Amino acid sequence: MDSLQVLFVAGTHGNEINAPWLMEEWAKNPDLINSCGLNVISVIGNPQAFKEGKRYLDFDLNRCFCDAYLSSNDPKIREVVRAKELLNQYGPKGSNPCQIVFDFHSTTSNMGSSLVVYGRRSCDLALASLIQGKLGLPIYLHEGDCSQTGFLVESWQCGLVLEIGPVSQNQLSASIIEKNRIAIEASMACIASICSGNPQYPSQIIVHIHKKSLDFPRDNIGKPQSYIHPFIDGRDWSNLQEGDPIFIGLDGEMVAFAEKDYLVPVFINESAYVEKKIAMSLTKREVWEIDSQWKEDLEDLVIANRKSM
Amino acid sequence: MDSLQVLFVAGTHGNEINAPWLMEEWAKNPDLINSCGLNVISVIGNPQAFKEGKRYLDFDLNRCFCDAYLSSNDPKIREVVRAKELLNQYGPKGSNPCQIVFDFHSTTSNMGSSLVVYGRRSCDLALASLIQGKLGLPIYLHEGDCSQTGFLVESWQCGLVLEIGPVSQNQLSASIIEKNRIAIEASMACIASICSGNPQYPSQIIVHIHKKSLDFPRDNIGKPQSYIHPFIDGRDWSNLQEGDPIFIGLDGEMVAFAEKDYLVPVFINESAYVEKKIAMSLTKREVWEIDSQWKEDLEDLVIANRKSM
Repeated sequence: MDSLQVLFVAGTHGNEINAPWLMEEWAKNPDLINSCGLNVISVIGNPQAFKEGKRYLDFDLNRCFCDAYLSSNDPKIREVVRAKELLNQYGPKGSNPCQIVFDFHSTTSNMGSSLVVYGRRSCDLALASLIQGKLGLPIYLHEGDCSQTGFLVESWQCGLVLEIGPVSQNQLSASIIEKNRIAIEASMACIASICSGNPQYPSQIIVHIHKKSLDFPRDNIGKPQSYIHPFIDGRDWSNLQEGDPIFIGLDGEMVAFAEKDYLVPVFINESAYVEKKIAMSLTKREVWEIDSQWKEDLEDLVIANRKSM
Repeated sequence: MDSLQVLFVAGTHGNEINAPWLMEEWAKNPDLINSCGLNVISVIGNPQAFKEGKRYLDFDLNRCFCDAYLSSNDPKIREVVRAKELLNQYGPKGSNPCQIVFDFHSTTSNMGSSLVVYGRRSCDLALASLIQGKLGLPIYLHEGDCSQTGFLVESWQCGLVLEIGPVSQNQLSASIIEKNRIAIEASMACIASICSGNPQYPSQIIVHIHKKSLDFPRDNIGKPQSYIHPFIDGRDWSNLQEGDPIFIGLDGEMVAFAEKDYLVPVFINESAYVEKKIAMSLTKREVWEIDSQWKEDLEDLVIANRKSM
C-alpha cells in the first residue's frame, strides 16, 4: 500500500476529552472537518482510560514509546500493550501504515494552541514551519530531557503534538473544540499543499527550545510548599527575567526566577504534571531560518506515499 | 464536653486540593488563618482519594450522608465507612462532637466563591446570612432534588458548603487558596460575633433556589451531543431568559433556554457533574427578609455550646 495516510490520535490521555469528542462527531458527520482530500485515520489513543475519565490506567501512554517498554513482554502495563497495538496497526511498519501522526492533547495551562516537536527531525520541523506560517502557533521543541522520554509521535517518521489549553480535565469546551478543528484543517491544508507542489513556507520560524523543568518547592515529605506566584500565573510564553517572582507560599515567602538568561515558561501549573514534579518548563526562544533539507525530507516522505491518493 | 467546636472538612472530594493544602499549611503555621478564638478541628474528608488525586474511590463521599448508606454495614463502599467514621468522631453525637461544619469544595465552573445551603434549616440560613452580609457571597439553596441527596453538612446541626472556582481538578491556585482563607476568616468572625453577642445581620439576603438541573443533549449511546454554548460559558449567576442559547453542537445546532421564567444557572460545565448528568443547574433568585427565628436558633446552638470557650 503506497497511499499517504495521516493518523490522528486523540485521547492519548483519557481525561483530555475535547479532541476525542470532536473525532467521534466527525465520524458521524464527515463535513465537520475538511481534511483536504487526505486519507486520515482517527483513533482513540487510550480507549479504556478515556472511558474511565483517567489520564491513564497503569502508566502514561505518551511515555511508553521507547525501546525499553516496546521490547518488553510484560502484559501488566496496559498502556504498553496499547502502544504496541497502535504501532502494529498504524505504525510505519504496521498492517495499515501511516506516515504522519498528529497526537492531540489538552492542558490546564494557559498556553492557547501550540505545537510540540520532539527533537530536531527534519520532517517534523518542516511540517511545524508550514503550520506556524499558516496559523502562527508557537512551537515548543522538547529535547534533551532524560526524565521525559517515549513520546508517541517519535515512533512515526513525522509527527507533531497539538496542545491546546486552558481547559480542565474531563471538561468539554466549545473554544477548545473549535481550536482543535481550526488547527486540524490548517494542518491538513499544509500537507495537501505539499502534495499539490505548492507549500508556502515562511522564511523563519520561532521555536521555544526546552531547557529544563522546575518543580514546586516541596517540604520534607514531598508536598508542594508553595504555589505559582500570581505574577506569572497564566503567563505561559512570556519571557521571565532574573528576580521575577515564580512561587509564593502562604507565609509570603517568595521564590524568584534565578536564571541569568531570559527564559520562557510553558506548562505553568499543568495539573497532570504535579506527579512528574514539573511546576513549569522553561524554554529559550530562538528564531531559526528554514532549512531547505527539512523541506526536501518532508516532500520526499509525502510524495513517495501519495501515489494512490 | 460543652465547648462549641467548628469542624472544617477539606478534601471531601480528593481532587479538590486547594482547601486541604491550605489546611495542611495552617497546621504547620497557626498564624496563617485567624479563627477568632474559636475551637476549630480540621480534617481531610477523604484522605485516600486525596492521596490518589481522585474525586472518590468507590462512591461520592458527599452523597453518603443519608440513612440508606449510613445504616448499611456493607464495608465495600469505602466512602460509607469514612462517612460513619467522621460522624462517630466529630458528629453531633460523636466522641469529639462539633456543632457547626464547613465543607470546602472547588469547582471547574466560573462561580467565584459561594455558599451552598441544603434545605431551609434555620441555623444554616442564619449563618449564611451573616456571611453574605460580610462578604457578599451568593447563596445557592439546594433542595427538592431527589437525584442528589446525602450531603455531608446535613448530618450536623448547622453546616455550609463553601464552593470556590474556577479551578481545574488537582490544580493548586493562589487565588483559590486566598479566597478560601478570606472566606474562612470571615465565617469565623461571624460565629465569633454571635459568641460575643453582637452579630451584624443584613436585613435581607439574596438566595438562589435550586429548581432543576439540565443534562447535555446526548446521543443514543449516552454521549454528550452538544457542548455549552459560548454565550453562557462562564456566565454562572447571570439570569437566562427564554431563547438564550445554552448548548450548541458542532453542526451548529443550537439548544435554546426554553423556560418562561428567568432562571440563573450555576455549576455550568462542572467537569465532575458529567457523570451525574448535570450540564448546569438552574436556580431562581429571590430576596428574603431575615427571619428572627433563624437568629434565635443559631444563637441557641452557639451559646449553648460556648461555655468553656
